[in-house]
Amino acid sequence: MKKYIQEDEWRIIEDGFNPDVHESSESLFSLGNGHMGQRANFEEHYSGPYLQGHYVAGIYYPDKTKVGWWKNGYPEHFAKVLNAPSWIGINIKIDQYDLDLYQLQVSKFRRVLDMKEGILSRSFIAEFPNGYKVQVKTQRFLSIVKRELGAIQYNVKALNFSAEIRADFYIDADISNEDSNYDEKFWDQVSEFADERFARVNAKTKKTSFVVSTGQCSRVDIDKQEVTKKPKAIVQARKAHLVYTFNLSEGQEAQFYKIGAVTTSRDYPAGDLDKRTRELIREAEKAGFENLKKEHIEAWSKKWEHSDIVIEGDVSAQQGIRFNIFQLNQTYSGHDASLNIGPKGFTGEKYGGGTYWDTEAYCLPFYLSTADQSIPRNLLLYRFKQLDKAIENAENLGFTNGAALFPMVTMNGEECHNEWEITFEEIHRNGAIAFAIYNYTRHTGDNEYLYDYGLEVLIAISRFWSQRVNFSEKRGKYVMLGVTGPNEYENNVNNNWYTSYLAVWTLKYTIEAIEKLRSVNRKKADELFDRLQFKVTEETAKWTDIIGLLYLPEDKDLGIFLQQDGYLDKEQITTDQLLPVERPINQTWSWDRILRSCFIKQADVLQGIYLFEENFSLDTIRRNFDFYEQRTVHESSLSPCIHAILATKLGLPDKAYDLYLRTSRLDLDDYNNEVHEGCHITSMAGTWLAIVEGFGGMRVKNDHLHFDPLLPKTWLSLKFKVHFRGRIIHVYISHKKLQVSTHDGSKFRYYVGNKEYLT
Amino acid sequence: MKKYIQEDEWRIIEDGFNPDVHESSESLFSLGNGHMGQRANFEEHYSGPYLQGHYVAGIYYPDKTKVGWWKNGYPEHFAKVLNAPSWIGINIKIDQYDLDLYQLQVSKFRRVLDMKEGILSRSFIAEFPNGYKVQVKTQRFLSIVKRELGAIQYNVKALNFSAEIRADFYIDADISNEDSNYDEKFWDQVSEFADERFARVNAKTKKTSFVVSTGQCSRVDIDKQEVTKKPKAIVQARKAHLVYTFNLSEGQEAQFYKIGAVTTSRDYPAGDLDKRTRELIREAEKAGFENLKKEHIEAWSKKWEHSDIVIEGDVSAQQGIRFNIFQLNQTYSGHDASLNIGPKGFTGEKYGGGTYWDTEAYCLPFYLSTADQSIPRNLLLYRFKQLDKAIENAENLGFTNGAALFPMVTMNGEECHNEWEITFEEIHRNGAIAFAIYNYTRHTGDNEYLYDYGLEVLIAISRFWSQRVNFSEKRGKYVMLGVTGPNEYENNVNNNWYTSYLAVWTLKYTIEAIEKLRSVNRKKADELFDRLQFKVTEETAKWTDIIGLLYLPEDKDLGIFLQQDGYLDKEQITTDQLLPVERPINQTWSWDRILRSCFIKQADVLQGIYLFEENFSLDTIRRNFDFYEQRTVHESSLSPCIHAILATKLGLPDKAYDLYLRTSRLDLDDYNNEVHEGCHITSMAGTWLAIVEGFGGMRVKNDHLHFDPLLPKTWLSLKFKVHFRGRIIHVYISHKKLQVSTHDGSKFRYYVGNKEYLT
Repeated sequence: MKKYIQEDEWRIIEDGFNPDVHESSESLFSLGNGHMGQRANFEEHYSGPYLQGHYVAGIYYPDKTKVGWWKNGYPEHFAKVLNAPSWIGINIKIDQYDLDLYQLQVSKFRRVLDMKEGILSRSFIAEFPNGYKVQVKTQRFLSIVKRELGAIQYNVKALNFSAEIRADFYIDADISNEDSNYDEKFWDQVSEFADERFARVNAKTKKTSFVVSTGQCSRVDIDKQEVTKKPKAIVQARKAHLVYTFNLSEGQEAQFYKIGAVTTSRDYPAGDLDKRTRELIREAEKAGFENLKKEHIEAWSKKWEHSDIVIEGDVSAQQGIRFNIFQLNQTYSGHDASLNIGPKGFTGEKYGGGTYWDTEAYCLPFYLSTADQSIPRNLLLYRFKQLDKAIENAENLGFTNGAALFPMVTMNGEECHNEWEITFEEIHRNGAIAFAIYNYTRHTGDNEYLYDYGLEVLIAISRFWSQRVNFSEKRGKYVMLGVTGPNEYENNVNNNWYTSYLAVWTLKYTIEAIEKLRSVNRKKADELFDRLQFKVTEETAKWTDIIGLLYLPEDKDLGIFLQQDGYLDKEQITTDQLLPVERPINQTWSWDRILRSCFIKQADVLQGIYLFEENFSLDTIRRNFDFYEQRTVHESSLSPCIHAILATKLGLPDKAYDLYLRTSRLDLDDYNNEVHEGCHITSMAGTWLAIVEGFGGMRVKNDHLHFDPLLPKTWLSLKFKVHFRGRIIHVYISHKKLQVSTHDGSKFRYYVGNKEYLT
Repeated sequence: MKKYIQEDEWRIIEDGFNPDVHESSESLFSLGNGHMGQRANFEEHYSGPYLQGHYVAGIYYPDKTKVGWWKNGYPEHFAKVLNAPSWIGINIKIDQYDLDLYQLQVSKFRRVLDMKEGILSRSFIAEFPNGYKVQVKTQRFLSIVKRELGAIQYNVKALNFSAEIRADFYIDADISNEDSNYDEKFWDQVSEFADERFARVNAKTKKTSFVVSTGQCSRVDIDKQEVTKKPKAIVQARKAHLVYTFNLSEGQEAQFYKIGAVTTSRDYPAGDLDKRTRELIREAEKAGFENLKKEHIEAWSKKWEHSDIVIEGDVSAQQGIRFNIFQLNQTYSGHDASLNIGPKGFTGEKYGGGTYWDTEAYCLPFYLSTADQSIPRNLLLYRFKQLDKAIENAENLGFTNGAALFPMVTMNGEECHNEWEITFEEIHRNGAIAFAIYNYTRHTGDNEYLYDYGLEVLIAISRFWSQRVNFSEKRGKYVMLGVTGPNEYENNVNNNWYTSYLAVWTLKYTIEAIEKLRSVNRKKADELFDRLQFKVTEETAKWTDIIGLLYLPEDKDLGIFLQQDGYLDKEQITTDQLLPVERPINQTWSWDRILRSCFIKQADVLQGIYLFEENFSLDTIRRNFDFYEQRTVHESSLSPCIHAILATKLGLPDKAYDLYLRTSRLDLDDYNNEVHEGCHITSMAGTWLAIVEGFGGMRVKNDHLHFDPLLPKTWLSLKFKVHFRGRIIHVYISHKKLQVSTHDGSKFRYYVGNKEYLT
């Protein structure tokens, strides 16, 4: 744990320059706008350790997987979001000395990420060996209004000298991925261009052949007066520069402006990119830095209006939740149904940037409540569009008849995980994708989605489950063998309760949805079934058989559901018996020991109880919580939030708050010493869940919102907003009262403890 | 299956040149002498597809493993025997035309591996585009008397032309491994030398720093008259040449002689290698090709005297078993206890050439019966010498108190397997190593080995088992979780019967051995226990507890031992329900489907029943055989031999013969279309077992040999020799009689069906 970020309700603040945590800061101060994102790399040259990071949504590369001995069905590629050409570079020379913070004496360094406005700023004084002192102030943002644009203001003041300044504004497409499996470069050179007003570099990804055009324009003022001398345009392989040389006198300040544009062949024909990039840059230049900034801040202000959470009495928690909301909004804007949310968003390369079940299980509820329903709908459409590939994926494993297995990780619908055991076995992801359809429909009431798209996905997933189980003559039950639950500290287990429960639920829900559509629109139903060659009677009869006979392991003595067959054969030890030096066990124990231990990486049985809590009595929930919480090491960032929600449900505010703390400031306080690799974007949605569904006790039941709040003792009040069926609902909770109102003042019916209220 | 090798009792014969099977022939015609070995690459340049292969025993490289996400305890390296500098090259130019069989018209091509003499020969006529016809006859061998030497005679006859001949005798150290994980080269250049009489290249392996010195001398005769003109000595980086140029007239024949020497820093100080290589070459030159050949043939003759098996009435089976015996003797000579037997011997790179449990479970019995006991003893000492590393290996996984886990694959005692799931879970290998000590002692009566070395290994393995199990409160039994049995079509199963049975057996045998040593030599025992900090009473009490309470799964209804927990939950289908196009399933099914199916790759429960048959009634054996044989796909070359032995035991000669056929000519007839990668050396020992223990029904019980023969119907008779307690026993079996005699004519007591006989 490295705690150096200052607490503030709206801002992330680093005071003083510390190269040791530079890469962590690069993660924490990341910017993004859904179309692109970047780590907080410095604009100027930096010779110390840093992690280059500029990413363009949807631009990926299928890297060859690393595997000892390849077997049939193994994923051939581990796709990764590419580190893309960067447009932020401004190298500064003062009388031939590089401005390089790693080499100079730095004082008054301060870096601020203003989450309210979406602006990253930095200021410092650097002293050169010859005594020159220069003051620098920068601002940078990626427009959430014009998503292909970003802008920088970079001010340099000569504090105690007069000298020649050389400012090199450049675009760099000579970029590699740190996590390249075989140390290959993933970008091919295409073309470069530069004239006095505009420079750009086009590059193309290997294999996938995405073309990305990265352009820039620049401007230099001295004491707010534009310099008339034009820059020198220089073109090199994979690079394009605009270089200014001018004199700065003691006390003068130079203002550098740089606007960058990134267009891709995902959005335009490759041949049009040059033109489009140039147009974008021209328009942006005309508008100017201040106007771009203004509309950007206004847009953020609107976003916050819909998604802010206000915690009174706990600045640390306030900063934590706002950071999480901010990052989620930076990562996914919902404007493009072929994009999704990578585990690190735009803040690092780890995990490849592909789509995991995190999206459906954690992120979807956040976007359901904080954004227009078109945005979570796009998350669902993403999977719908990849249904063909999911069917192919299942066929590769030997399934037939239109059964679909959605990938564990994907970019374009193909499986691209690095580990076969997860790919083949962690199939509960299919259930999460089915549940997301239910969750979306429940929250929005948009049944049309179910009929137009959702049901087709549900049938394909149900077909998968029905083939994935087999009937055990020995038990007289259906069983589900060789799976891995959410608890990845197990491998190839039989009858994982969570997976099997989810499978049964999917089959039931699909049958319900079929019946619903048939009753609403028989013709549409028949057309769909025809197209899918779906034999309704026969297939649903098989499903019904499975629903009745699928084995769900439980232990009657303990009154708990059993994570899997034989779980109780393990040596039963609890987390309080672990020494602090042993934790996290994934850093100190061998994988062999972890697999054989009873320790649970993340909510597994409890994930199921969380999803389907209305099916279980409070006693059942309590027994399972007590048993499994003691054995859960929470070494996934997705875990404590689920436990926190159940703890509030069980009326355990202290326990819930403890668990909440492990998720809320995971990155800001770098609990796991890994934030330098990027932030845990998808699990940030879990923090939101812990607040709204945990402390707020919010549920959607029978078309209505229910609340059952339980605030942490230290919080004075909690305030959040929820999008629900076309309206924005304001919720205010203190220890004494719950206040629900609507944004537009309309009347709204809601429930507290099953009692009906009207705003 | 590609059947093109001609049947012959003593020879492997290929008639006619077929480039399509060239790489398979390179495997089948491989030569080896325990110190080095080589695929049957041509001496002259060959531009068609071939697989370079020259290997030096014990010269390996730890290649970085390929793994998606590395976890604690994963092996860092996959060690591989290196493709080493080759000395066989003789490039021939005739008037500037290359002699290159891939480009010329070839007739009368014949390749013969004479197994009786250990000589590879080749003859052919090649016609050049200009009409020149040349006849070539070659012979090659690797001396099993002077193991650092090999020799070639290469005769070239001008059939219809007179021309200038250029013969380039060279050494090539610019060699790569085909299976390099990251396309790296593994050899560093050291030095080259060449003068008229001697050329050599020294090269050094990366990381491991083995130096290998490869030398040659050469001689050219024309019509048996040595040419007086000296060769031109040429040195290049990693290469050294001796080049002759001379004229050959129509009808004349040139005889080329080449002797190669390979010395390594495993055997001499690196600084002495130059001298040693030169000396070896000088001595060999003095002795001459014919003398070297003569002593080599004599030595093979002695080997055959001890290890031959004669089958009357089945040439195909005769050739098959001789091929297997020949290859085993080429691979391992037993002269060096730091060497072992790789799965492909010296015939290919696959599986890395490391030591697997194949050695103890399959090869040891072969060497016990066919060689002096010092040779199998060296196989045991190999593991003893690596005990420290096995303890380290176990410590890396979290075991303590001197517990040892021998590696799944190794070169120097370190684990170097490519797959974590095998490394961590396929721990039955530890049991095979323990059993080998018992097997050796049982066969040789050499209890001193047990006291001096074996017991220390047994204690370390027993300590491992006692920590690897855990007590299940739920069952009131010890359980062994997360293992993989010999059936690698399962992964991470609980309570694999074979592994657990072997563990119990090891604990019992260790306790017995401890008691034996204490009664024989109390002082020695106490010294050993002191050194090992072995708390006899306490530790053996724990072991006894485990022996009594370790859970061994069985199914009472079926009367069988259960491969693992939940095996009967799988869909129970039998191999006769598989379509021919589906087999082998490892080439047509996804790994996911294979893992979840009930199909068994290789003997698992039956491997245990084979090892401990005296503990089970014939009925029990039959029930298990009937159940598991139906479910076994035999997709490991180590499988059918074990089933064949049990089938003879059960009086099923046809079944046994069917199974035997799958192993006996596996490589010669290339059943699995993979012999181009190399031969299945270790499983060749299984063929020997199938004959001697299967059809011969030989067992060692209570210090005596027992026989219970059952010949295949087509065989007239079977004859084999067995080393047993200092004597060589001759066994002759026909359908009518069994004849046992001793090599030295001495009296010998043996048993048939528990009845005592005397020779």
